[in-house]
Amino acid sequence: MAFVTEENLTDLAEKRWATAHTPRLAELTTALVRHLHAFAREVRLTEDEWMAAVEWLTATGRISDDKRQEFILASDVLGLSTLVVQLNHRFAPDATPATVLGPFHIDGSPPAPYGSDMSDGVEGTPLFVTGRVLGLDGTPLPDVVLDVWQADADGTYESQLAEVDEARLRAKYRTRSDGTYCVRTIAPLGYAIPMDGPVGALIGRTGISHFRPAHIHFLIDHPGHDRLITHLFRSGSPYLDSDVVFGTKDGLVVDFDEHPAGTAPDGSTVDTPHLRAVFDFVLQPSAPDGTRP
Amino acid sequence: MAFVTEENLTDLAEKRWATAHTPRLAELTTALVRHLHAFAREVRLTEDEWMAAVEWLTATGRISDDKRQEFILASDVLGLSTLVVQLNHRFAPDATPATVLGPFHIDGSPPAPYGSDMSDGVEGTPLFVTGRVLGLDGTPLPDVVLDVWQADADGTYESQLAEVDEARLRAKYRTRSDGTYCVRTIAPLGYAIPMDGPVGALIGRTGISHFRPAHIHFLIDHPGHDRLITHLFRSGSPYLDSDVVFGTKDGLVVDFDEHPAGTAPDGSTVDTPHLRAVFDFVLQPSAPDGTRP
Ligand SMILES: [Fe+2]
Ligand SMILES: [Fe+2]
Repeated sequence: MAFVTEENLTDLAEKRWATAHTPRLAELTTALVRHLHAFAREVRLTEDEWMAAVEWLTATGRISDDKRQEFILASDVLGLSTLVVQLNHRFAPDATPATVLGPFHIDGSPPAPYGSDMSDGVEGTPLFVTGRVLGLDGTPLPDVVLDVWQADADGTYESQLAEVDEARLRAKYRTRSDGTYCVRTIAPLGYAIPMDGPVGALIGRTGISHFRPAHIHFLIDHPGHDRLITHLFRSGSPYLDSDVVFGTKDGLVVDFDEHPAGTAPDGSTVDTPHLRAVFDFVLQPSAPDGTRP
Repeated sequence: MAFVTEENLTDLAEKRWATAHTPRLAELTTALVRHLHAFAREVRLTEDEWMAAVEWLTATGRISDDKRQEFILASDVLGLSTLVVQLNHRFAPDATPATVLGPFHIDGSPPAPYGSDMSDGVEGTPLFVTGRVLGLDGTPLPDVVLDVWQADADGTYESQLAEVDEARLRAKYRTRSDGTYCVRTIAPLGYAIPMDGPVGALIGRTGISHFRPAHIHFLIDHPGHDRLITHLFRSGSPYLDSDVVFGTKDGLVVDFDEHPAGTAPDGSTVDTPHLRAVFDFVLQPSAPDGTRP
């Protein structure tokens, strides 16, 4: 029989997991065994550290529920979430880059007409985001839905609140026949990730900044194109250089220009000073064979 | 500013976690980032697989409590637990090898005199385990405590039962002045790991046997020596070649010899046929400087 030794253990474990019923599961589990063992061997993990990891993983599972997903947060701060997005969305250089979805998206936001205000009743500096949605060849795309969501001035998303009567700082806009869209909202601010769980406890033992720079989330799922999940970041925001979830890709940082009260970009009247950002989203066409871009 | 790309992301994440407040935590977290990213890159992890992993980890945390530790089970079946034990207990070739503690040890088992029966009232074939505890140079060691525990004929440990009045199939024996010990118990049988949780669900998607060969657990924590946590396995048992937790190290498989009713090894009378196993435990001396062997 094959006795277990320090030398053969990784091989034995890989061979065993190679019996998975599908080739892909075998590929995933054997690679996991190999990398997990390589990690433990490289750092010569102690038994106390191993037990601390078991306890940390358990606490991370136990704090997670349908409002909070601490393992996603863990994946975010380790750069894994952004890596997985990037591995699955290798877009052309001219396409708008994809970023993580984050934990705060809510399905089924209400439709919002061109220029309508998704911040209705929430305190903040008015902001208009306008521009077009384009194909990779520059063709404006009509009737494209932009699912938009953001945090309030306290850094709180609707999904973090106990109960909300109406959709709050989220809406689905649609491009007009010339591919243009107009979102009215309030200027987002940077915010801290939740620091009261196991991920926060770990971050607190490092010099890592636990903030995200000011941003708005967009999800554009248009037929014939790769689903685009992305952020727009406000240029000059604090934390742009240290986004704790590694979201700041080139091309996603936009200026928020100050404008006096007067006519808004959608032709309506705005009676206070406000901000304007202009951004064209460029969609990556789906691969004809259904492979990942 | 440093925008995030597929190429620089792992470096950025490593540099960030290198700010941990202690060198060891920085070593652990940067290595974790590196190996986790290498895994995701190698298999080009899909977003659905990533989400399945998040859900699996969450379920594994949520099913764990003070009676059940599913992350330890996960670590066991991936070979990680045995690897960590081995990395921390690189004993001399003549010393008894260390294995995993497993989830079923209970602190504070009652003292048991030489030859006393720790299976009192539990159904099974009587078994006597006798032998000596020795130093690495062969010196018999008196007054060494052997903390012993095992499963019953259904594969159940006391710690898996709701409530038990007295210690059940566990006891602390002690060597006599000549280094000898004598455990009376029942013959252990192989058993299945719990298959009703996320680890079982994963194992069920592979050809992996979810059984452990018949064994008894021993813990010997004697001054001046490395703490020895080990198993004795019954030779010829099913699953010796496929122990799901990778416990079967060379030198831990012993014969259980059949004997007729008559005089037991401790001089008492045994009125049924019974089994006898003989094993000398050889302890690894502590390193003088407190380093790990
Ligand atoms: Fe956000
Ligand atoms: Fe066991």
